[in-house]
Amino acid sequence: MSLVNRKLEHVEICLFEDVQGLTTTLLENVELIHQAMPGVTFKDVDTSLIFLRKRLSAPLMVTGMTGGSQELGKINSVIAQVVEEKGLAMGVGSQRVALEKTEAAESFKVTRKVAPNAPLIANLGLPQLVRGYGLDHLRRAVEMIEADAIAIHLNPAQELFQPEGEPEYPMDALGKLRDISKELGVPVIIKETGSGISMETARLFRENGFTYFDVSGQGGTSWIAVETVRDRRRGHWKANASEPFIKWGIPTAASVVETRFAVPDGFLISSGGIRNGLDVAKSIVLGANMSGMANPVLAKAVSGIDSLKRFFDEVIFQLRAAMMLTGAKNLVELKRRPVVIWGKLREWMESRGITLSDYERIRRGG
Amino acid sequence: MSLVNRKLEHVEICLFEDVQGLTTTLLENVELIHQAMPGVTFKDVDTSLIFLRKRLSAPLMVTGMTGGSQELGKINSVIAQVVEEKGLAMGVGSQRVALEKTEAAESFKVTRKVAPNAPLIANLGLPQLVRGYGLDHLRRAVEMIEADAIAIHLNPAQELFQPEGEPEYPMDALGKLRDISKELGVPVIIKETGSGISMETARLFRENGFTYFDVSGQGGTSWIAVETVRDRRRGHWKANASEPFIKWGIPTAASVVETRFAVPDGFLISSGGIRNGLDVAKSIVLGANMSGMANPVLAKAVSGIDSLKRFFDEVIFQLRAAMMLTGAKNLVELKRRPVVIWGKLREWMESRGITLSDYERIRRGG
Amino acid sequence: MSLVNRKLEHVEICLFEDVQGLTTTLLENVELIHQAMPGVTFKDVDTSLIFLRKRLSAPLMVTGMTGGSQELGKINSVIAQVVEEKGLAMGVGSQRVALEKTEAAESFKVTRKVAPNAPLIANLGLPQLVRGYGLDHLRRAVEMIEADAIAIHLNPAQELFQPEGEPEYPMDALGKLRDISKELGVPVIIKETGSGISMETARLFRENGFTYFDVSGQGGTSWIAVETVRDRRRGHWKANASEPFIKWGIPTAASVVETRFAVPDGFLISSGGIRNGLDVAKSIVLGANMSGMANPVLAKAVSGIDSLKRFFDEVIFQLRAAMMLTGAKNLVELKRRPVVIWGKLREWMESRGITLSDYERIRRGG
Amino acid sequence: MSLVNRKLEHVEICLFEDVQGLTTTLLENVELIHQAMPGVTFKDVDTSLIFLRKRLSAPLMVTGMTGGSQELGKINSVIAQVVEEKGLAMGVGSQRVALEKTEAAESFKVTRKVAPNAPLIANLGLPQLVRGYGLDHLRRAVEMIEADAIAIHLNPAQELFQPEGEPEYPMDALGKLRDISKELGVPVIIKETGSGISMETARLFRENGFTYFDVSGQGGTSWIAVETVRDRRRGHWKANASEPFIKWGIPTAASVVETRFAVPDGFLISSGGIRNGLDVAKSIVLGANMSGMANPVLAKAVSGIDSLKRFFDEVIFQLRAAMMLTGAKNLVELKRRPVVIWGKLREWMESRGITLSDYERIRRGG
Ligand SMILES: Cc1cc2nc3c(=O)[nH]c(=O)nc-3n(C[C@H](O)[C@H](O)[C@H](O)COP(=O)(O)O)c2cc1C
Ligand SMILES: Cc1cc2nc3c(=O)[nH]c(=O)nc-3n(C[C@H](O)[C@H](O)[C@H](O)COP(=O)(O)O)c2cc1C
Ligand SMILES: Cc1cc2nc3c(=O)[nH]c(=O)nc-3n(C[C@H](O)[C@H](O)[C@H](O)COP(=O)(O)O)c2cc1C
Ligand SMILES: Cc1cc2nc3c(=O)[nH]c(=O)nc-3n(C[C@H](O)[C@H](O)[C@H](O)COP(=O)(O)O)c2cc1C
Repeated sequence: MSLVNRKLEHVEICLFEDVQGLTTTLLENVELIHQAMPGVTFKDVDTSLIFLRKRLSAPLMVTGMTGGSQELGKINSVIAQVVEEKGLAMGVGSQRVALEKTEAAESFKVTRKVAPNAPLIANLGLPQLVRGYGLDHLRRAVEMIEADAIAIHLNPAQELFQPEGEPEYPMDALGKLRDISKELGVPVIIKETGSGISMETARLFRENGFTYFDVSGQGGTSWIAVETVRDRRRGHWKANASEPFIKWGIPTAASVVETRFAVPDGFLISSGGIRNGLDVAKSIVLGANMSGMANPVLAKAVSGIDSLKRFFDEVIFQLRAAMMLTGAKNLVELKRRPVVIWGKLREWMESRGITLSDYERIRRGG
Repeated sequence: MSLVNRKLEHVEICLFEDVQGLTTTLLENVELIHQAMPGVTFKDVDTSLIFLRKRLSAPLMVTGMTGGSQELGKINSVIAQVVEEKGLAMGVGSQRVALEKTEAAESFKVTRKVAPNAPLIANLGLPQLVRGYGLDHLRRAVEMIEADAIAIHLNPAQELFQPEGEPEYPMDALGKLRDISKELGVPVIIKETGSGISMETARLFRENGFTYFDVSGQGGTSWIAVETVRDRRRGHWKANASEPFIKWGIPTAASVVETRFAVPDGFLISSGGIRNGLDVAKSIVLGANMSGMANPVLAKAVSGIDSLKRFFDEVIFQLRAAMMLTGAKNLVELKRRPVVIWGKLREWMESRGITLSDYERIRRGG
Repeated sequence: MSLVNRKLEHVEICLFEDVQGLTTTLLENVELIHQAMPGVTFKDVDTSLIFLRKRLSAPLMVTGMTGGSQELGKINSVIAQVVEEKGLAMGVGSQRVALEKTEAAESFKVTRKVAPNAPLIANLGLPQLVRGYGLDHLRRAVEMIEADAIAIHLNPAQELFQPEGEPEYPMDALGKLRDISKELGVPVIIKETGSGISMETARLFRENGFTYFDVSGQGGTSWIAVETVRDRRRGHWKANASEPFIKWGIPTAASVVETRFAVPDGFLISSGGIRNGLDVAKSIVLGANMSGMANPVLAKAVSGIDSLKRFFDEVIFQLRAAMMLTGAKNLVELKRRPVVIWGKLREWMESRGITLSDYERIRRGG
Repeated sequence: MSLVNRKLEHVEICLFEDVQGLTTTLLENVELIHQAMPGVTFKDVDTSLIFLRKRLSAPLMVTGMTGGSQELGKINSVIAQVVEEKGLAMGVGSQRVALEKTEAAESFKVTRKVAPNAPLIANLGLPQLVRGYGLDHLRRAVEMIEADAIAIHLNPAQELFQPEGEPEYPMDALGKLRDISKELGVPVIIKETGSGISMETARLFRENGFTYFDVSGQGGTSWIAVETVRDRRRGHWKANASEPFIKWGIPTAASVVETRFAVPDGFLISSGGIRNGLDVAKSIVLGANMSGMANPVLAKAVSGIDSLKRFFDEVIFQLRAAMMLTGAKNLVELKRRPVVIWGKLREWMESRGITLSDYERIRRGG
């Protein structure tokens, strides 16, 4: 099966099979505190922030999904147009296909064409570094879309359960990435793809100089579930073996906490199961700097530009509503607002040695 | 849509749509302790208290709901008659409509006519102060029903999700209200409308000299739900956007705890989802001075005077039963009775830095 | 309605309506610890104990239920025969009816006739003391069945929701009881009837010299439910008012803990929802000295002597099984066995200021 | 009923009746931590270990089940062939039948014939020692299959609820076993059969010199349930009496924790409800050295050799996946990986006086 066909199948499965929300982000264990006297007027709520030296109108990005064929380029184009208009950021899907087949590059380049001002984020997987990619490849990926940063995605769980997967994650890939990152000229974002980043992993990358993280935790799209669908379609034995792993991973809320705890000075993107503006607001109070979404954006993008615009309007309205109701005029105030953390998220934190009071200090300062 | 029509629609939705009890008050996490040897004889249980310099036979009020048209005045009249007879207190709905259209005043004035002795509470929204109301308007509202106090309601969540809402809650409205309150001659009650008062908000008002609070927390009528019904009927986009907020707010039990914790010397009315006399008793043990109800009173009032009387008889019997069974001869003893606080309410308190032992001291002393 | 008819209706409701197990005893939050190497041989397990100077073959009594008419005397007779044969103890129902109508005495006396050796327990309600009973009445009740003790039952919740109830529990009844108890010659057992004894109540009675307690907590037969059935049959308004109280009371497990905590040196009978020998074993590990059952015994008794015998055989087998599997050769060892207390019972204890470690010391020593 | 027929009935009930997974192992309260950058390549993951001086390819054994007739010997033969091929270990069922009827020995001997290199484990019950077995019997059991160790199984709960059970577990059997073990020449494994080993029991055996434990906790096959099926088929009264005991026992995860806590230097096999390689990985992180399975192996074995091989391939793949995703190259690293322990397992530990932090030290060092 060609790489392009696999990408098409991924999109199709994400749209039509039951592969998201199988578990929880644990954001339902995060309660923002209603302030009956917010001291804020709705129209004055300011959701803007600086991301990769550009000003966004809201702390929202579309995380990397696709590219590689004409149809997939169309999706990229729709997203890019909306992102440009709304003042948001966007990542593209893995560019490996375009580095290997130059005619595939067009489906990525289109994003910069229609989004000249938006922060765009290039994308490659860490396994490519293991299999020979170097500074040159990353440069070409960045240049392809004049990217403001490159996300290096980590997907060991996906590789494991993929019919054709090659799960190789040796530690020397990290050293190689560190060396490349010094030469690259744009920041590297360490990005999971749905299983979350732990405090150990965050610490490891921080010690190697990385400060941008996209946690992509459990609770949204499950790549183990996606590959299990593919296994099943092929009658591959992994379809059965993957079953106990359907809930594998760190729930997004726990991953935000773990990463912020390990990297108080990092820039954190919360993603994985972010579905509305209240999720965004909760993430930020919990310690993230902004949020990312993939699957729901895909669903809207294939319905057309207007559908996607309306979706973002709603999400931003919800974020603004949550900000107003908690009495936050801007994102700096938002992250200092009080919060109730309870239930399983609190138990998770306790078991990981993160006390509520220690974390309270970190999340507000971060 | 005229203000009067909106009021009618509110009443209709509260009576016929599914807009209450969507979430919980957390009062189910409060257990009174049965005393097999109460040392009390039922007929000696004294539920009376002083409220706004008048003696009530029970710690119960009907919180503000309506007025503005003849039909709505009829409802007010029924409630007022019963309240007078039973020795309870009553608030009217927002009087803005009567300040703007004098012929609407009659539907409010009727309450004082039929309830010459009951404590009556005038009602205006904080947003009116933002949009120009001043001392004079509040005076006219008070005088209209010879009110013993005026409730200023806070409803930012409702404004946000209302099709025609104008969510403006700037901090200077608070200063304005403080200045007015010094001249007004009757106490001002700071009142939510179903999303609850937090410790931060309570502290803010206490620092500005206010000591009466009606918490109106989450778990009873949800005004976000009410306005979502209206959005949906009009095909307004907010109908979708409001969905993640259906559970927004501070559960009533948590709001009583937060407000009492922040304002140990305040007079607290617990409302929002109070549905029987056991809820009243639990509220008082938890830290409230009395309780308020809206929606269930409306439902009985439209069934007629007798129906409402029977309802209050039941509620008062239940309160007396709870007092006897916990060994409390009067309300002062009731609030000193032991209590079990567990489950989510306890987790809420812990996450907000309120230990059971600290709170134990405050709730008994308050 | 005559007292006898009410007794008959009680029995009928307990047999045929849904009035038990509406809530939980919280014994499901008590886990005995399996010992794979118990060091015990089944036939050597000794369940005997001394109760009221007589030796019982097992820590089991039938708590007071009935008497007053020929049919009810038949039930008493069946129970008494089985209790005598099996070496257990038995209480009779309230003897007020027999003190007021001498011909009713026969239905109580039969118990001593057929159970010459079993500990028998007389029964009167505290309200009778309020309404004029004195030493003489209690003496007559004791003599009627040559009782080894008398249970004075506390039932304020039942009185409250009974159609004809007269809820009077003034504190001076306690002083009167204390004085009587000094003259009576047999111990007085302080007994609830399904709502449980709190630590405050236990302490109160201990301070007045009482050391026998039958906790009769919530989770078994609910007398509030029984009286609500009677209210409903009569169209009495209390039927509605009682609804929020269906879960009222202290769960049996919590009541055992509270009473043992307050009265380390007391003799405690756990009852209310005890349904099998594992419940008995759990109660004893939790701090009780023995257990009592009412409703399930009634159900078997009306099916005949053999049915009741088989039931006790099963219960005793289960108790012996639990003792063997926890490695306890006798009841003294049983109460020192380790235990897991978790879930809501643990939260209840924490909220009442009883730490697991403090209680551990008390329950083993008690 | 002959011993052989009982063995056949056991197998039949385990295959066709609902006797497993009635309760939980509590392994669902153990979460391994995903490491997005594992630093591991899948093919380098090393699952091997030394068990009874032989190298296993994975920390997996089939725990003792059967033998005694030709059909049962067939099952043993299938399991032994697969175990030999895959590099795993195997226990046989109780050999009492073969010690009493020599012609039954063949069905056990076959295991060594087809598995010349695998660690094989002989099996007898502690009750046999009580009823007269001595060093000689154990020697014969070991020699019968040239066993590398002998498991002495503890099954007091099964004996209790078996129609023909003779529950005898006097303490002197332990002394006898200790003396025998000194002469025997192969290690003795202390093995439960589905109700788990407590810290008290573990400590007792450790003090007598035993260091191998197979916890066989609750959550998998329930022998109380199996015998209840047999009681019911025979109309035996124990069928009813056993009902409250269906959940009796120590959940496997709790039993691993208790045993490791009591015996930091022991060799622990986790079994009872282990159903896949993720369960194996969780057990090891929790403190076990390896895992055992019975019932699921039986089900596959009767479907044939290939079915059982595929099953083990899956289980081992899952274990390797969990190791890679937690960043563990081998079993020594695996047990040092971080873990979240929450929910009921954590409550169990707290109630048993095992703090998370104390246990953290022990499980990593053990
Ligand atoms: C169709 C699809 C394709 C994806 N492809 C990539 C990819 O190439 N690179 C990457 O880093 N993440 C990829 N992702 C993962 C997302 O960026 C994101 O981390 C994950 O889907 C969780 O977010 P969600 O729950 O909002 O979907 C893809 C997601 C989707 C739905
Ligand atoms: C029909 C209706 C109209 C209401 N109008 C007002 C109002 O005008 N002013 C106000 O302060 N609260 C108003 N409320 C809110 C109630 O006073 C109360 O805070 C809220 O309904 C929660 O109480 P409940 O759960 O007992 O209904 C209204 C409630 C209802 C049901
Ligand atoms: C039919 C019936 C009659 C009862 N009558 C009395 C009584 O007269 N005096 C008393 O102390 N308790 C009485 N009880 C209460 C029981 O003794 C016991 O406290 C209560 O039923 C809880 O136990 P159970 O759950 O095992 O039924 C009665 C119970 C039943 C079922
Ligand atoms: C059919 C069958 C027969 C068993 N016979 C024995 C036995 O003879 N000796 C023994 O120690 N355990 C015996 N067991 C218990 C198992 O070894 C194991 O401890 C228990 O079944 C729990 O593991 P599981 O949940 O994986 O089945 C038997 C189990 C099964 C299913």
